[in-house]
Amino acid sequence: MHRRDFLRNTTLAGAAIGIQNQAFSYIPSENMKDKIRLGIIGVGARGYETLKLALYRKDVTVTSVCDIDPNHAARAEKAVVEAGHKKPALYTRGDYDYRRMLHSKELDAVLICTPWEWHTPMSVDAMRMGIAVGCEVAGAASVEECWQMVRTQESTGTPFMIMENVCYRRDVMAALNMVRQGLFGELVHLEGGYQHDLREVKFNDGKQYYGGGVEFGEKGYSEARWRTQHSVYRNGDLYPTHGIGPIGSFINNNRGNRFVSLTSMASKARGLHQYIMDHPQGGASHPNATIQFRLGDVVTTSIQTAMGETIVLSHDTSLPRPYSLGFRVQGVKGLWMDINKSVHIEGRSPAHKWEPADAYFKTYDHPLWRKYEKDAADAGHGGMDWFVLHAFVEALKNNEPMPLDVYDHASWAVITCLSEQSISQGGAVQSFPDFTDGRWINRKPVFALDDRY
Amino acid sequence: MHRRDFLRNTTLAGAAIGIQNQAFSYIPSENMKDKIRLGIIGVGARGYETLKLALYRKDVTVTSVCDIDPNHAARAEKAVVEAGHKKPALYTRGDYDYRRMLHSKELDAVLICTPWEWHTPMSVDAMRMGIAVGCEVAGAASVEECWQMVRTQESTGTPFMIMENVCYRRDVMAALNMVRQGLFGELVHLEGGYQHDLREVKFNDGKQYYGGGVEFGEKGYSEARWRTQHSVYRNGDLYPTHGIGPIGSFINNNRGNRFVSLTSMASKARGLHQYIMDHPQGGASHPNATIQFRLGDVVTTSIQTAMGETIVLSHDTSLPRPYSLGFRVQGVKGLWMDINKSVHIEGRSPAHKWEPADAYFKTYDHPLWRKYEKDAADAGHGGMDWFVLHAFVEALKNNEPMPLDVYDHASWAVITCLSEQSISQGGAVQSFPDFTDGRWINRKPVFALDDRY
Repeated sequence: MHRRDFLRNTTLAGAAIGIQNQAFSYIPSENMKDKIRLGIIGVGARGYETLKLALYRKDVTVTSVCDIDPNHAARAEKAVVEAGHKKPALYTRGDYDYRRMLHSKELDAVLICTPWEWHTPMSVDAMRMGIAVGCEVAGAASVEECWQMVRTQESTGTPFMIMENVCYRRDVMAALNMVRQGLFGELVHLEGGYQHDLREVKFNDGKQYYGGGVEFGEKGYSEARWRTQHSVYRNGDLYPTHGIGPIGSFINNNRGNRFVSLTSMASKARGLHQYIMDHPQGGASHPNATIQFRLGDVVTTSIQTAMGETIVLSHDTSLPRPYSLGFRVQGVKGLWMDINKSVHIEGRSPAHKWEPADAYFKTYDHPLWRKYEKDAADAGHGGMDWFVLHAFVEALKNNEPMPLDVYDHASWAVITCLSEQSISQGGAVQSFPDFTDGRWINRKPVFALDDRY
Repeated sequence: MHRRDFLRNTTLAGAAIGIQNQAFSYIPSENMKDKIRLGIIGVGARGYETLKLALYRKDVTVTSVCDIDPNHAARAEKAVVEAGHKKPALYTRGDYDYRRMLHSKELDAVLICTPWEWHTPMSVDAMRMGIAVGCEVAGAASVEECWQMVRTQESTGTPFMIMENVCYRRDVMAALNMVRQGLFGELVHLEGGYQHDLREVKFNDGKQYYGGGVEFGEKGYSEARWRTQHSVYRNGDLYPTHGIGPIGSFINNNRGNRFVSLTSMASKARGLHQYIMDHPQGGASHPNATIQFRLGDVVTTSIQTAMGETIVLSHDTSLPRPYSLGFRVQGVKGLWMDINKSVHIEGRSPAHKWEPADAYFKTYDHPLWRKYEKDAADAGHGGMDWFVLHAFVEALKNNEPMPLDVYDHASWAVITCLSEQSISQGGAVQSFPDFTDGRWINRKPVFALDDRY
């Protein structure tokens, strides 16, 4: 039985491990928590890295691990024990065993590091059980899916954080610092995206994580097993958050500003087919050579905001290219561009000339990075993963609002399905729902205001 | 009397210097011409530079100069005489004196370097008189204006070239060479634009060409006198050709491919007002501080082509920023980006790494640049202006098709009014007319195929 069918059946039947909707299921403790009992759902390529970060922390105990692959669970168990912790409970009995974990009463919080299509049902189930959620990033398949996350968070009161690590990238936080100190003046235009050659992620030999073959789906391993299907069936900006997350911080998204509308255009789809054709393990006779990929190689989305900024997002994951999130932050007084690592500030830079961004980023290094540089040094992804977990744990311990919350999540993730809709309508304008029900007008920024988290 | 009123009156009255529509008014000579008798309309900032380039050439005689400013005409006359040529005839009797020049029978060809709104009427008049036209670039105010150019060229047979110099920029031509030799593989996505801080062009002190004050319109001088008005009244990509011209060459626009649709979004308009407020000659009490500029500081246009490429164009002329046309040429095998001067070619570049573009551009230097590098060395705008004039003169002398023709012009210039339409409709999709009446399917590329022009 597939998970979705099971979910439907258990919901209908109210099966033992089904999750009931519980209003106000989260009861915040009156005092600061010293220690967070943490479970992780999904300890594959990404979740295992997250687990290792959690094991660094003295204020976290990893009590539970869930994965449909027993080998992954065993590897995680080993890491927990080797870090000097108690053996965690393992949940490996298939797709819905995570619900047994949520019922275990061993957990204050759960990290969700599973394939995209599981983020919403797992987050919703955890929030309904009053278990705080730190959810990995993804795009949404429907607008309603985003609303479900929002309404569940609102009705249960359970803390939810979207774990967008790039919001904590050192240069991005320095740029945010510069924005807040007014260096760029009033913001006018921003760019970002996900420009990452994922061909060796989308295809492998069924054994190793990256490359070595042109297999995916049932014959693929790890991300190639599920992620590549989205490139076969969907055409839109599948992965908007690494670009739009930081931009959301820059423009105070849902906090005095919001995304209002978008249009999206997709190029032809050539890269993945070409990769299969050219690969030593592929070629014209390989069964995958006949597959038509729907995902345009480059998807460009233009967004308008309530305060009049424009945003251009790129999604470019099927062609040979160096990695670049392509940030641009442009205001009345100057701009930063990521791709050439340069800044121009009027009155400070030589007229009409670029300066290296490095010097600015040293001067405007965010207080959080200054304080925690050493702690983050050993962590993955340039340290930003350390910061996103740190923020989740600290906000939870202190009963404070999550710095990247369910409204951030919904307004970022919805870009994926709005982008698909726009492309399917030849580029027609799509409106963003206001997931805050108008509260964006008066909500105040909370992200990284000081050096705590 | 204003020019437009005069035009209407003279057309109605069939006045002596009115221009009648003449089918097949251009009679190509049977033999190659040795020498082109050239007139120039508009010898201000731009036209004077073009004039000086024409004076370098042994196969051109500048017989006529037209300008509404007698000082400009006198300066031009001086330059012609100093170059050892016969004194040119001067036409300075107001807006329509160019028609007297067109009637003079002194001309084989005319270069049009006047404000944007004059390009179409002057080009149309010259074509009707059988005088070949080299027209400076601009955007169109209406779709019909583009059709008028196309239909006039078709009915008269008069050669028309749109003088887009960036098509001849050395790196752009090397990139074209790389495209044609298949280095990038099948093209997928392209970017370009006009990102140029024009604030000291849009405002001056009424005496000097650039800067020194916040005046424009009647109190401004040179471009500030007319160009800035477009920023007050219009909101769209006002100047698309420097970006889209080269991209048109890369994708074989109107020659096996064409632009099909676009959407356009404009940011808020802040830069020009801020400039007036901050300028020592400006400030809150300056009359221009109350003006509301309609032109969004950054206008982004996404274009779809018949062959499935996407194109993103930027227009960004009102904010402090270093100059950049922001080219990106991306295919199945790799990409070039202008802003970081880098290339990545699969199998040749280190995986996931950029290489400096310079080495590629040296290897793939276009034959035209190799041959004429020294001739172009003294010319303005990095030599590209020399090449665009060279192409016009050579094609004309040889009775060969213009390398950048009226279909190029129409499909580039129409972006401006389609962009305005899209923005006024909140980003709605606009369709490009097929100015070739379907002939784009079978037309073959002609631009820069060899080292002649």
